[in-house]
Amino acid sequence: MKQIDLMKELHVSSDKKIILLVMDGLGGLPGKEGKTELEAARTPNMDRLSRDSIVGLSTPVAPGITPGSGPGHLSLFGYDPLEHQIGRGVLEALGIGMNLNPKSLAARGNFCSLDPETGVITDRRAGRIPTEKCAALVERLSAITIEGVDIIVRPVKDYRFALVLEADGLAGALTETDPQKTGLKPLAVEALNDESRKSADFLNQWIAKAFAILKDERPANGCTLRGIAKDPGLPSYAEVYGLNACAIATYPMYKGISRLVGMEVLDAGDTIASEIETLKASWNRFDFFFFHVKKTDSAGEDGNFDAKVKVIEETDTFIPQIMELDPDVLIITGDHSTPSALKSHSWHELPILLYAKNIRRDMVTTFGEVACMQGGLGHIRHTDIMPIAMAHADKLTKYGA
Amino acid sequence: MKQIDLMKELHVSSDKKIILLVMDGLGGLPGKEGKTELEAARTPNMDRLSRDSIVGLSTPVAPGITPGSGPGHLSLFGYDPLEHQIGRGVLEALGIGMNLNPKSLAARGNFCSLDPETGVITDRRAGRIPTEKCAALVERLSAITIEGVDIIVRPVKDYRFALVLEADGLAGALTETDPQKTGLKPLAVEALNDESRKSADFLNQWIAKAFAILKDERPANGCTLRGIAKDPGLPSYAEVYGLNACAIATYPMYKGISRLVGMEVLDAGDTIASEIETLKASWNRFDFFFFHVKKTDSAGEDGNFDAKVKVIEETDTFIPQIMELDPDVLIITGDHSTPSALKSHSWHELPILLYAKNIRRDMVTTFGEVACMQGGLGHIRHTDIMPIAMAHADKLTKYGA
Repeated sequence: MKQIDLMKELHVSSDKKIILLVMDGLGGLPGKEGKTELEAARTPNMDRLSRDSIVGLSTPVAPGITPGSGPGHLSLFGYDPLEHQIGRGVLEALGIGMNLNPKSLAARGNFCSLDPETGVITDRRAGRIPTEKCAALVERLSAITIEGVDIIVRPVKDYRFALVLEADGLAGALTETDPQKTGLKPLAVEALNDESRKSADFLNQWIAKAFAILKDERPANGCTLRGIAKDPGLPSYAEVYGLNACAIATYPMYKGISRLVGMEVLDAGDTIASEIETLKASWNRFDFFFFHVKKTDSAGEDGNFDAKVKVIEETDTFIPQIMELDPDVLIITGDHSTPSALKSHSWHELPILLYAKNIRRDMVTTFGEVACMQGGLGHIRHTDIMPIAMAHADKLTKYGA
Repeated sequence: MKQIDLMKELHVSSDKKIILLVMDGLGGLPGKEGKTELEAARTPNMDRLSRDSIVGLSTPVAPGITPGSGPGHLSLFGYDPLEHQIGRGVLEALGIGMNLNPKSLAARGNFCSLDPETGVITDRRAGRIPTEKCAALVERLSAITIEGVDIIVRPVKDYRFALVLEADGLAGALTETDPQKTGLKPLAVEALNDESRKSADFLNQWIAKAFAILKDERPANGCTLRGIAKDPGLPSYAEVYGLNACAIATYPMYKGISRLVGMEVLDAGDTIASEIETLKASWNRFDFFFFHVKKTDSAGEDGNFDAKVKVIEETDTFIPQIMELDPDVLIITGDHSTPSALKSHSWHELPILLYAKNIRRDMVTTFGEVACMQGGLGHIRHTDIMPIAMAHADKLTKYGA
């Protein structure tokens, strides 16, 4: 039996509340003085909490696998990221705050330059046109209509845009139109199975109309579609866990992924302080709170060790306010590691702290990567986190008699 | 390849002997002075043994999942409890010592009260009639015969009884007859697939005859059948491991589960001391000994920390006698945790101690939950235990060339 089915079968209601505090890209590598960002940060509150907690290390997807934001969060939410995949088009659309639903089909679009005579691509990024130009072109493309389907186009950044179709019976087994090099014509969308024929037909109609509109533009007189994908149709948190869950996040991408699993996305401002206010204000309305801190990851991506330390320290200062709410279960971890030494996501395990009222404490008294190696949780997978949290919140009944 | 198939393929014979000592519900949570029951207990013998052993923590089914006795033991025996399930009817029958075999179909029965005019249920438990009354009614129901099937009915407790049918071609995809509330008539058994039609037919015939017999009884003038299930037809220990295995247990349930995997169930009295005598007396006849201590779990279920400590201490006093037998492999663990703080089974990992003559020792010198967090076995699953035990007893050959 798969974990999700087991959760569907075993979940029961309780009045206990769970907070999943995710510091994006939390895991690090030794930098200054041989310490990771989390170890170098002054985190008296998390250290104190670790004494009443059990800690360990968690692998997001599988050993050695560096996750993108999609798989990192899906696994935190308890959905096997090797089974449930979020297509790139869907992530692109979510990343700019577009709402998707199970009828949606989303694609990443690139404006490109075509040779007006031969139609072959001369620049796959249309000279990296500025975002304003992109927005103006998208405005023109918004005029396209096709019978039987709702169409939304939105600018992303530079030459990139997002296209979402919404209709019954769309499917995502489709080829991309970008031939991946210049000197070739854009390809047609091809259906890779019968169910996807309708989608291919809609997209090819859209492309024909788009090319007609763009014909006299320079340099962006064409476009390609990539990562065409359906909303993954994930079973909701209510269905899987019986939870009334909300998402407190500042970036559209994370709001979007939360919406895919049926969380109510709250308006949380754009600082950790405003997110904390949102948490407090909504405390009585939900029993599960996904709380996302973005800037640990941004600092890591920038290779800025000190900035990442500062975000961790800032987050730590809010722990007392979180504990004042008296959560029954509090998990602190990240979706994936983003060591500033690597300036990118990495495969490294995440330190994880699990506080609960009836916890089997371990001997660890600080929160950091090396300390967590000695933790009582041992080495777990991100997909284990939700079942463990549910158990500690008395939300799972016995399996078998 | 599934683990069971791997074991079937790789097992070889050796003259070495394995003891699996299961203290039911062993795992605990911090109580007095921050120690678990096992940590609080004086266990000089197990502590001494831990110096020549490797220890760790083991998850019965999956992280966060609280197992019933069935899944807890199946996983200890090396059968994936998410794949092999023991139905409630089967457990009920095993629990009162009924013998089952792959031709058996078992159900839990409840006597109930019916409105004599309308036939709707007025009390789903027939006023909780005493066990003696139940036994007398079961005696009357024992007269029922149906051509082509052997039928056994036995009283369980209060209003509950167990019904076992035995015939070729029975199957267990069947609905229950209890409508789950009063004011409704008992339902007919329905087959959920073609193979189960014969079983549904037999059961509905039995119910009609039972209702005729009970018609003038008060308050128990009807009955319902629930948890109707086939013997799971597990491959035997001889087949999977090549082991000549016996079970030394005091409670019918554990004897029954052992019988499901083909262990010879020995008459072991009803104390740990009598179980030890049975172990000694049968030492030359078997190469695998499942030794079950029940009362750790009973004390945990009662929320009686001190009583659980005492059962652990009593068990510890018998360790020297066990070691005098010179077992090649001795495993000490539990089927699931039953912390007295929770008064119920729980999902927490089990401390496990593995003694073997050629063990790779770790640094741990006591046997307890927190000590085991530092153990050399790390965090394993219950289904890992049998392969590890087999390996230490030289009973597994190399996989692949």
